[in-house]
Amino acid sequence: MNMPRKKLPSQRKLQPTQLHEGRIGAPAGMEASDTLKVMALGGLGEIGKNCYVLEYKDDILVIDAGILFPDESMPGIDFIIPNTAYLESKRENIRGFLLTHGHMDHVGAVPYVQTKLGNPDIYTAELTKNMVLKRHTEFPHLPKLPIHVVKDGDRVKMGDHFTVEFFHVNHNIPDDLGVFVETPVGNFIHTADFKFDPSPVNDRPMDLQKIREYGDRGVLAMMIDSTDAERPGHGVSEQTIYENMDAIFKDATGMLIIGTFSSMINRMQQIVQLSEKYGRKVIFDGYSLKTNVEIAKEMGYMKIQKGTQISMEQLRDYPRDRITVVATGAMGQEGASLMRIVNGEHRHIQMQKKDTVIFSSSVIPGNERSVQYLKDMLYRGGVKVYHYQMMDIHAGGHARQEDLKEMMLLTRPKFLMPHHGHYSMMVSNGELGKAVGIPDENIIIADNGQIVNFTADQWWFDKKTIPANYVMVDGLGVGDIGNVVLRDRQALAEDGMFTIVMVIDPKTGRMRTSPDIISRGFIYLKEQKDLLMQVRKKVRHIVESEKARPLNLSYLKDEIRDQVGLFLFQKTERRPMVLPVIIEV
Amino acid sequence: MNMPRKKLPSQRKLQPTQLHEGRIGAPAGMEASDTLKVMALGGLGEIGKNCYVLEYKDDILVIDAGILFPDESMPGIDFIIPNTAYLESKRENIRGFLLTHGHMDHVGAVPYVQTKLGNPDIYTAELTKNMVLKRHTEFPHLPKLPIHVVKDGDRVKMGDHFTVEFFHVNHNIPDDLGVFVETPVGNFIHTADFKFDPSPVNDRPMDLQKIREYGDRGVLAMMIDSTDAERPGHGVSEQTIYENMDAIFKDATGMLIIGTFSSMINRMQQIVQLSEKYGRKVIFDGYSLKTNVEIAKEMGYMKIQKGTQISMEQLRDYPRDRITVVATGAMGQEGASLMRIVNGEHRHIQMQKKDTVIFSSSVIPGNERSVQYLKDMLYRGGVKVYHYQMMDIHAGGHARQEDLKEMMLLTRPKFLMPHHGHYSMMVSNGELGKAVGIPDENIIIADNGQIVNFTADQWWFDKKTIPANYVMVDGLGVGDIGNVVLRDRQALAEDGMFTIVMVIDPKTGRMRTSPDIISRGFIYLKEQKDLLMQVRKKVRHIVESEKARPLNLSYLKDEIRDQVGLFLFQKTERRPMVLPVIIEV
Repeated sequence: MNMPRKKLPSQRKLQPTQLHEGRIGAPAGMEASDTLKVMALGGLGEIGKNCYVLEYKDDILVIDAGILFPDESMPGIDFIIPNTAYLESKRENIRGFLLTHGHMDHVGAVPYVQTKLGNPDIYTAELTKNMVLKRHTEFPHLPKLPIHVVKDGDRVKMGDHFTVEFFHVNHNIPDDLGVFVETPVGNFIHTADFKFDPSPVNDRPMDLQKIREYGDRGVLAMMIDSTDAERPGHGVSEQTIYENMDAIFKDATGMLIIGTFSSMINRMQQIVQLSEKYGRKVIFDGYSLKTNVEIAKEMGYMKIQKGTQISMEQLRDYPRDRITVVATGAMGQEGASLMRIVNGEHRHIQMQKKDTVIFSSSVIPGNERSVQYLKDMLYRGGVKVYHYQMMDIHAGGHARQEDLKEMMLLTRPKFLMPHHGHYSMMVSNGELGKAVGIPDENIIIADNGQIVNFTADQWWFDKKTIPANYVMVDGLGVGDIGNVVLRDRQALAEDGMFTIVMVIDPKTGRMRTSPDIISRGFIYLKEQKDLLMQVRKKVRHIVESEKARPLNLSYLKDEIRDQVGLFLFQKTERRPMVLPVIIEV
Repeated sequence: MNMPRKKLPSQRKLQPTQLHEGRIGAPAGMEASDTLKVMALGGLGEIGKNCYVLEYKDDILVIDAGILFPDESMPGIDFIIPNTAYLESKRENIRGFLLTHGHMDHVGAVPYVQTKLGNPDIYTAELTKNMVLKRHTEFPHLPKLPIHVVKDGDRVKMGDHFTVEFFHVNHNIPDDLGVFVETPVGNFIHTADFKFDPSPVNDRPMDLQKIREYGDRGVLAMMIDSTDAERPGHGVSEQTIYENMDAIFKDATGMLIIGTFSSMINRMQQIVQLSEKYGRKVIFDGYSLKTNVEIAKEMGYMKIQKGTQISMEQLRDYPRDRITVVATGAMGQEGASLMRIVNGEHRHIQMQKKDTVIFSSSVIPGNERSVQYLKDMLYRGGVKVYHYQMMDIHAGGHARQEDLKEMMLLTRPKFLMPHHGHYSMMVSNGELGKAVGIPDENIIIADNGQIVNFTADQWWFDKKTIPANYVMVDGLGVGDIGNVVLRDRQALAEDGMFTIVMVIDPKTGRMRTSPDIISRGFIYLKEQKDLLMQVRKKVRHIVESEKARPLNLSYLKDEIRDQVGLFLFQKTERRPMVLPVIIEV
């Protein structure tokens, strides 16, 4: 039986925003050419492929260009990047390409879009620069990236109409920068991914006084991170995480294996410190994780005492309870370190009873089953497991409701434009804005591709939108996979395929040989000889009852597809893709 | 690029239980023939396809036979049923087939296994009977089910060695029965899915005094529901749900659409009562939901005032704010009522601004993304959304930690055998047992297929196990889909297929026509004429350089598969399934 198929992303009807409905089209007497235009090519209504655009006359700023991971309706797709067609058509206007921080959903698309944008000047912080450059070595055919390093407090004029100030924000990676942009119609803030943390690890807290001063200078509009807008209260401080982890380290028996994300540099610093405190050596496992650690160490963002870090090969030189392994794969990704360990496929590490495993990560939606599998396998192995639902051993990188409200109160923006989150999260963020007194009509819940126009006291949506559809990357192909191919993949996954090859003598209309059948993913053919024989008979009958000369091949193929498809469905209630091939010899 | 593929269920290594390791093999001097054997064909380490077996000498009891829904590693599979090979070999010993309640994960496999088990006598409560019989009408070729209706307090002797007493438990469906079994080695309890609810809707609370009396009679072993063993505290009462829903009903604007599970009969009764209180008509939408409502009404399990329930066609006869729609699809299932509504594909119901939607359901792991999509689409439509993370508007059907401990304290089992839950949940349930004083060595965390032997004072695992692998149902095929077919489906989903048909003159070894290429799910061929030409050229070259006569077809096919596969990977970094077909004419 076929299950109804998932809609493809592009088939999902995006309806005009109705909750906080904005005016569509410029008000009478207004010129759209005098407005600040704010657009997103990604990051509105989704968590991923962040890419925001500010445009005033002939000046354009681009903020971030990240990737989005595909869902199960897109089999085989590696990731999705923003559609930059609009920017490409105006590439000579791009005055700056700002990268807020080094996470893949913010910088992962840089190698794919940089050339298309005309290799614009990139402005970013030191760590982000190094992470982007490291990744760029995987694309040796691309030109060098023109990166300017900026830091908290730097002020850069970009084009005739923009002056950008960068400000330090807390997140779960160092060197995250928010941007404050002076524009001819007013000041604009993009918070980047941020949280408030009064006692961050290996970092200093955000300067809230400075944020308040931005508010004093007047903020026309603010784009604000919505990821945790549905979570009440304040975020958990990294200090709390540190203390909880300390308690686990103290009691830990056996090897200590900690699953986390490779970009969680601050968390890794905590793990190093605790390992040093409790006399454990540290092994980093996983390519991306090791790379990030090396970058962070070189820059002084991670401090590791001499002798703490050991290589995987040195594992056997130390007793098991003197080892900490920091591993990738906390989401249950196949092939990642943690999954190889629990599946007994890791070359160096075997789980043992009384080992301790910490999941220092939240579960990204869609990975619940894999994480449960991982947990179950660990429990089966007699391992002690700690995860974030048991205690605070992971702090998200995003501001929660009370922090978001505080950010709004400090900056006092006239217009609030939630970004970075699913639609429901952006609406929840908008509700927080209402709670602190921003009028409903000044809260803008937009979709990717919509053009939001700002004057000093008004906003409206353009009637037209810019392209913001998914550009899928699969292997070397960028954007070459469309709905046809995806649909086929889905259909093939459901019930497989059934190819029938017929060699027909065009003169007699008779088949020269019995039809060849190649089928995969449909049924185990070796046990279905009878079914195959019936199909062959049916095909021969269809072909040889056809009297028209020359043979109408497309008619014949349709007949075979329909009749064999129906026959197979009646016999099996499955609908393999039936592909008739006729060869006239 | 290919992502690493998911392991198939049967490839996942199940390791012997190590945490609460039991003795494997009978202790010296013990005869395994004198023991009570407890086995599971499903339901241990998973939530689904529950099927438990009690065996003493030549008497067998079977408890439940449900289905499990596939995960994303099993595309196209409808569901999974228990492997009953062991029971089939002993079918003449089955003295009773007990069905605890009407949920599909407990009764869904009945039509598939009943005949194979020799059509044994079924014992179940009235509602479950009616639900099972209703479903059985979809299998008209099967023999009638010999169902005996039992109720709370009934005592039935089954075979020479078992006497079964049924006891009422609370759940989110009425007529759920736990079983107390007297056996020659001691008394055994199977809790079924249960929760404590002091104020259930449309039902009476469990008789805890009676449960305590079971404890007084002595309980050798208890199988206890682990689903919510990781959730602290007590369960939420249906009365609380009722009060919270009342508040939403009171304020609700527009049409009120409530998504729930079709088997949540008690919840539907609450919705009916509230609709009557606030003057709304009720429409039930979704086939399974309507069926269950009809059964429950006929039996008096749902009480609906005359005139409250209206048909979908009467929708337009009432103002929008006088309508409650109870809809299926709260998990975001494609094709279900709620999904059709948000996608604008419902024949009768369109979302409108200010409508109110309640998700009176928890999110089953694996459905998070679909539910988020549903929520986002509702928010986009300007609808007011309430879900269980915002307030208690859904109570699970399962006892939480404090309730589980209370159950253990009432029954005081010597041996505790958690069931119904992922492995981590069973371990957590075992930890609760320890917390109430059950010794570690008396807590049994088992896997499907393991045989647990009980004497009056000992337990151990048999050295041998019984078959408990997945039996997959796909359309009419039961158990005919194995790893080969699933692997092919996964591979086809990732990168599609690429079939090359060659007609070769066996005498000259030359191709009679240019090779035909049929490809799906790989690349959009119409834009890849150049690639196709190169493949054709390559194929012709491979074929015509082959000098051996007669042609070694399998060698030639391997060559083509390898070389074309490599070529396509180099050009695209994708690995479609390459299928060469050679026809000699």
